[in-house]
Amino acid sequence: MSFFPNVPQIKYEGRGSKNPFAYKHYNPKEVVFGKTMEEHLRISVAYWHTFNANGTDPFGVGTAVRSWDSLSPLDRSLARVEANFELLEKLGVPYYAFHDADIAPEGETLAETNKNIDVVVAKLKEYQQSTGKKLLWNTANLFTNPRYVHGASTSSNAEVFAYSAATIKKMLEVGKELGAENYVFWGGREGYESLLNTDMGLELDNLARMLHMAVDYAKEIGFGAQFLIEPKPKEPTKHQYDFDAATAINFLRKYGLKDYFKMNIEANHATLAGHTFEHELRVSRLEGALGSIDANQGDYLLGWDTDEFPTDLYSTTLAMYEILKNDGLGKGGVNFDAKVRRTSFEDEDLFYAHIAGIDSFAHGLKAAAKLIEEKVLDGVIEERYSSYREGVGAEIVAGKHDLKSLEQYVLTKQQPIKNRSNRLEQLRASVNEVITSV
Amino acid sequence: MSFFPNVPQIKYEGRGSKNPFAYKHYNPKEVVFGKTMEEHLRISVAYWHTFNANGTDPFGVGTAVRSWDSLSPLDRSLARVEANFELLEKLGVPYYAFHDADIAPEGETLAETNKNIDVVVAKLKEYQQSTGKKLLWNTANLFTNPRYVHGASTSSNAEVFAYSAATIKKMLEVGKELGAENYVFWGGREGYESLLNTDMGLELDNLARMLHMAVDYAKEIGFGAQFLIEPKPKEPTKHQYDFDAATAINFLRKYGLKDYFKMNIEANHATLAGHTFEHELRVSRLEGALGSIDANQGDYLLGWDTDEFPTDLYSTTLAMYEILKNDGLGKGGVNFDAKVRRTSFEDEDLFYAHIAGIDSFAHGLKAAAKLIEEKVLDGVIEERYSSYREGVGAEIVAGKHDLKSLEQYVLTKQQPIKNRSNRLEQLRASVNEVITSV
Amino acid sequence: MSFFPNVPQIKYEGRGSKNPFAYKHYNPKEVVFGKTMEEHLRISVAYWHTFNANGTDPFGVGTAVRSWDSLSPLDRSLARVEANFELLEKLGVPYYAFHDADIAPEGETLAETNKNIDVVVAKLKEYQQSTGKKLLWNTANLFTNPRYVHGASTSSNAEVFAYSAATIKKMLEVGKELGAENYVFWGGREGYESLLNTDMGLELDNLARMLHMAVDYAKEIGFGAQFLIEPKPKEPTKHQYDFDAATAINFLRKYGLKDYFKMNIEANHATLAGHTFEHELRVSRLEGALGSIDANQGDYLLGWDTDEFPTDLYSTTLAMYEILKNDGLGKGGVNFDAKVRRTSFEDEDLFYAHIAGIDSFAHGLKAAAKLIEEKVLDGVIEERYSSYREGVGAEIVAGKHDLKSLEQYVLTKQQPIKNRSNRLEQLRASVNEVITSV
Amino acid sequence: MSFFPNVPQIKYEGRGSKNPFAYKHYNPKEVVFGKTMEEHLRISVAYWHTFNANGTDPFGVGTAVRSWDSLSPLDRSLARVEANFELLEKLGVPYYAFHDADIAPEGETLAETNKNIDVVVAKLKEYQQSTGKKLLWNTANLFTNPRYVHGASTSSNAEVFAYSAATIKKMLEVGKELGAENYVFWGGREGYESLLNTDMGLELDNLARMLHMAVDYAKEIGFGAQFLIEPKPKEPTKHQYDFDAATAINFLRKYGLKDYFKMNIEANHATLAGHTFEHELRVSRLEGALGSIDANQGDYLLGWDTDEFPTDLYSTTLAMYEILKNDGLGKGGVNFDAKVRRTSFEDEDLFYAHIAGIDSFAHGLKAAAKLIEEKVLDGVIEERYSSYREGVGAEIVAGKHDLKSLEQYVLTKQQPIKNRSNRLEQLRASVNEVITSV
Repeated sequence: MSFFPNVPQIKYEGRGSKNPFAYKHYNPKEVVFGKTMEEHLRISVAYWHTFNANGTDPFGVGTAVRSWDSLSPLDRSLARVEANFELLEKLGVPYYAFHDADIAPEGETLAETNKNIDVVVAKLKEYQQSTGKKLLWNTANLFTNPRYVHGASTSSNAEVFAYSAATIKKMLEVGKELGAENYVFWGGREGYESLLNTDMGLELDNLARMLHMAVDYAKEIGFGAQFLIEPKPKEPTKHQYDFDAATAINFLRKYGLKDYFKMNIEANHATLAGHTFEHELRVSRLEGALGSIDANQGDYLLGWDTDEFPTDLYSTTLAMYEILKNDGLGKGGVNFDAKVRRTSFEDEDLFYAHIAGIDSFAHGLKAAAKLIEEKVLDGVIEERYSSYREGVGAEIVAGKHDLKSLEQYVLTKQQPIKNRSNRLEQLRASVNEVITSV
Repeated sequence: MSFFPNVPQIKYEGRGSKNPFAYKHYNPKEVVFGKTMEEHLRISVAYWHTFNANGTDPFGVGTAVRSWDSLSPLDRSLARVEANFELLEKLGVPYYAFHDADIAPEGETLAETNKNIDVVVAKLKEYQQSTGKKLLWNTANLFTNPRYVHGASTSSNAEVFAYSAATIKKMLEVGKELGAENYVFWGGREGYESLLNTDMGLELDNLARMLHMAVDYAKEIGFGAQFLIEPKPKEPTKHQYDFDAATAINFLRKYGLKDYFKMNIEANHATLAGHTFEHELRVSRLEGALGSIDANQGDYLLGWDTDEFPTDLYSTTLAMYEILKNDGLGKGGVNFDAKVRRTSFEDEDLFYAHIAGIDSFAHGLKAAAKLIEEKVLDGVIEERYSSYREGVGAEIVAGKHDLKSLEQYVLTKQQPIKNRSNRLEQLRASVNEVITSV
Repeated sequence: MSFFPNVPQIKYEGRGSKNPFAYKHYNPKEVVFGKTMEEHLRISVAYWHTFNANGTDPFGVGTAVRSWDSLSPLDRSLARVEANFELLEKLGVPYYAFHDADIAPEGETLAETNKNIDVVVAKLKEYQQSTGKKLLWNTANLFTNPRYVHGASTSSNAEVFAYSAATIKKMLEVGKELGAENYVFWGGREGYESLLNTDMGLELDNLARMLHMAVDYAKEIGFGAQFLIEPKPKEPTKHQYDFDAATAINFLRKYGLKDYFKMNIEANHATLAGHTFEHELRVSRLEGALGSIDANQGDYLLGWDTDEFPTDLYSTTLAMYEILKNDGLGKGGVNFDAKVRRTSFEDEDLFYAHIAGIDSFAHGLKAAAKLIEEKVLDGVIEERYSSYREGVGAEIVAGKHDLKSLEQYVLTKQQPIKNRSNRLEQLRASVNEVITSV
Repeated sequence: MSFFPNVPQIKYEGRGSKNPFAYKHYNPKEVVFGKTMEEHLRISVAYWHTFNANGTDPFGVGTAVRSWDSLSPLDRSLARVEANFELLEKLGVPYYAFHDADIAPEGETLAETNKNIDVVVAKLKEYQQSTGKKLLWNTANLFTNPRYVHGASTSSNAEVFAYSAATIKKMLEVGKELGAENYVFWGGREGYESLLNTDMGLELDNLARMLHMAVDYAKEIGFGAQFLIEPKPKEPTKHQYDFDAATAINFLRKYGLKDYFKMNIEANHATLAGHTFEHELRVSRLEGALGSIDANQGDYLLGWDTDEFPTDLYSTTLAMYEILKNDGLGKGGVNFDAKVRRTSFEDEDLFYAHIAGIDSFAHGLKAAAKLIEEKVLDGVIEERYSSYREGVGAEIVAGKHDLKSLEQYVLTKQQPIKNRSNRLEQLRASVNEVITSV
């Protein structure tokens, strides 16, 4: 039985193809910059947006009607498993990612919930084995249920902390069972609504306590996944504790957790924090903490997380540039944490949207490779900073100077200092030529 | 000779006074929460906005005409010294703060510039001694001169790094000479205009190198001032490296500088970064890094640093709450990094504006003290987090749990968990009553 | 039977009362500026936020549990009627407001829906008569149902236009039946998601067609309510056609509708559009189009409609200043289009929140009256523009000049022109003194 | 004598050229969509950013050193005339645009200023005649001089209104003398800093009075230029009266000025107002008011007018799409109201930046033409709104329905209504293919 009977296998047909069910850029086995596109991109489908979301927004109910809607909760969950693997196969992509709440119905008790999870996990495992598809990451949903109204690890209620711990434990076990390559911690409601009633010190201490417990338990059970923090500045809370990469990394450093976590950077979260996507990737890369990405895009004129499928080629190109400079994402991947618009409510849109996003990243990969191969950016950077490779600059970098020696140096030099133009406008035009020529 | 002959000594006359040249709230010797207002607030006047700025903006030339405008550069600098101390005395406040470029004209060479500085510093010292007024902090202006077009410590040009080092050296010596209680590092142009042409790794390394050199030199000359970083997210650059407190503290931690620096938090910089002023104060306080504040306010609907005199009593109250919770600002103070509006171009406005700002902080101090004394916020917080002072919560805080023991705990408990309302609306009403009743 | 058995009648106890179930400022019969507070404020409760909302947000399900939740749809609707009038009576406020979808369950067909509405309307009418409470306004919800996925009057689907028309017809009849004093048109999904696929010209023409039909039908049935447009810039769509007051009024002018509509200004919509609340009120007032207000507040650092209960006294004071300058709101009122925070999920919070909001508006009313009585703002304005009451200024205003005569005038005058300081900082301090002294 | 001796004539070399002094897309005589590129784009250079600006920003002095800097004021102005025409010729573009203050030094009196202007205008006219270059538009700078501290036409000081009138008179005469095809009114400081001290009603009335006087005088002297309003939402004032196109058009309608003015839409002003560039163009087009454009781009993450040279191909493509749909800009043109970055301070950057911007618009023109020719967008739109071309939809558009007839229609129809997906993701992918294939 097929959930998407009208959708054929999506294949690469290249530029010029008018077939909406074909890739124009993503050619999995094509070698770019020394690896296949598939190896570079490690594409993943987000279970929640693809199989659970239905277009609900704060002003309206769902618009998408799926064939599994009428089933009982557990059967619905099982049907979604099949739909997931059908979609992965038809898209020809290797990974998926989920929260506990996406895959199985919550029960009245923890025990009941875990039992439901076990049933679905068994089926996921079976399908993974038969299809060769893999789990990029899993995580625990610690924000939807009303118990998390005040947060999870940072709840003002210790009972909720305990419940969160039990849930994370279960999901670490599930990750191990399914061979997840990463495990993600997105803050959910870990933040504050108002400073007036918040003990931020205790809340941050508790958040660190929970992460330490997770690290310890993964070690105990031999779950070797890469642990990832996903920064977001706001929404649903006024202020989320993992505001951006720098904030999250500072937290990790403060609490002795830096060695155990990398970042899962989401484009739309970056822009909500006042940064570009590539900025957050750069910061993470320089900290040795670029783990994985949530591929999507926001709307700069809207102040909430719109989670659109990424089609901005400037953004995908500069993201792939950072990833190539990072020697790839390691265990991480390009997870499409993106939802079809509420107005794109037909089943086929799930495919059209993924094709749009995947092609945009494939295009970005090719453009980024060309930027590097032709030294479009790197050549400029080498030249700009050349003064640090000789003379006083090289000595400064080598640690041979102090304020006194530099004052002496300056006093002997002719003023004024000569600088050179950055030629930024010309550089941007060159980037345009590269992006539109691959 | 007087620079402000129409301005009388500003005295406290209390609520109800209609005298525009009087304080309605700031009563320096009045004891609030165990200390005098003067001791709490440690008020400082910003030299640049008060004596150098003239109302220029990107669309128009200056509107203020000062009596010293027609003098030669050095005489103008010397006149401003007199005006500064007259203003401090008339306002009855103890501190001032400056950049090198504020107090003396720049020469053709570093030597010439330093000579000019020495002349003015001698006069400042003399006036400090005769009036008892003190220097809250000084700093180096590493952004106005064209040499800093690409940054100072983070310039792509090593010659500029060297020049910056020499300038910082001089200003550390000036700080020592004048007994500055703090020394501030505001990033100026330390950031990037575009990632396309920026070697962020080298730039951050260089920034750290410079700060280490400054720490070392201050130690060498016995200059015991508190060192302060002033975060700002953007402007003039697209991205300033000291984006916000968390980012700056992460940088300090990464480069082994955390012990040597605290934060100088500016209200308008906080809001440009997407935070409230009180958020940045809270973050700094919890990091043991709340050093001093730049008191001003921005306009939430405008995207640049408007540096308005602070009159929002919500903001001043919550700022003073954080400061009281921090046991005060230590060596730091409340520096009015605020400029009169371009439309407030008369000499008297310098006084009216400072009175407005100082009274708003004095009002905020009284309201914050009342909030604490009546446990308006603290009572709510104690109650909200009470579950962490007993039972499983106390055990979690004491480090007695792991994921397994917490799962066991949850499995034995009745579901669902009961949470309590935050009653935020009621709390905000209570805060209103406090602010409008002091 | 009581829905709020723990809540007593809310009475005025004045400043200093610590009773959370009492007004500190709102004293309905107290005369301020020539009218009672009740007459000035004409307070209204929003049915949707108060009786239908349960704290759902995009990241979590509802947190509030109400006593009517377990009833069947129609019984639930009827129970809410009782709860509504109990709340109105306990709060001691005269008005309420609703959408069709708030008061009755939607049926399978229009006929069925209308039948449900009739049942509930009969009960509302009965309760209005027995309690004396009144309907400030009603409206049609043309955005929640999936049929409105592409808009209502501006849908790309003519069937949806027709359905919207039928719905508006019914709600005009309901308004007449219940004596609604106003009828509101909030755009819902009238806007676009992307210009790429939008025929904006046709959509705006259709919107105007619908409004003309509504005007005509109201006339036909003798429904004399004031018609109101409620501007909002974005959310749920990327761009809502009624972006702000100026945009909405331009639309009305273009389509010959200006005489039939006024504005219903919402604070949070104003700030999302980049304006202050008082700006939108001022613009509407000067256009003779200030009809009513949706009282709430947003969070300047968040980019979505948070609909918080208003407690910012600066905002309530300046809003009431505009309303007093408008000689009141006429048929309009102060409708609390505000929802309790998701964390304020207990029944009592519905009261605490309304008390907070009502007291903040009562406080604002008293402060605004004092600002006017003491000519704090008006005195400044009279003085600032005095040059237009004599000489060349008076002649300009009287239409006696053209470019040539003004050039002649300038050529005879001494340059440079002398301007005076605005003293804005001092004025803000004066406003603080007024707000904190009433 | 040459001002740009190192810059050759800029010619079209096409894609693949690595010559930085060549166009890759702009081929003036190439026919696209029925007209030459030159005729479509009508490119203009902005005098102020190109010849007067030097890189000054609020945190630093100028970085650009031009060969005319050392001349006396009037000689400097005359040298800039020569530089302007050399640049226009080397770029091979037909138009330029200026404010009075850009071209001639201001004198002590109006008479003296006008005399300076006359000297420069004579030279401009001579160069226009000898080169064939033309004036796209001129305008009066009513914001830089301190006299405009409180606005010009909306100043609280009637003397300033008079002075503004005299200045506008002169510039209308200059426009006539030089054959300007348009005359622009950008608000400058026409707006408010605070509502607390602003008589908005009088200010708007005065603004309208001034525009009527300008219309009358242009008629009197036979100056047939198109009059343009340039909307901007904020900066330098907190709120500019011509906030956006809809606001400006509402103002024009209210004051009987709609027939005499069109819009000059600037990309960066659009985004500061919360709109896309293409939105403002669409709104203006539908109002029959799309007059001309100020081509530049902002930075969505920065809150001020950065006036960058436009290189975002999404923006240039969608702008050109609106312009093609408008049957071109008529008398208007594409004026590069863009400044080289402060870091692009060398003379050559003036060329590199214009080449980047011009090529981006030429690229956008080709992409927009292809979008239209291949019906990429128009085909979708025709299909989406097809229900309004038949049946009830056609009847609605033809004005044959009212609320009653539509209710009757709905009551006879089967529910629920069927809508179709918008397929926005697929459409965006198609747009990418077009933009990167021309």
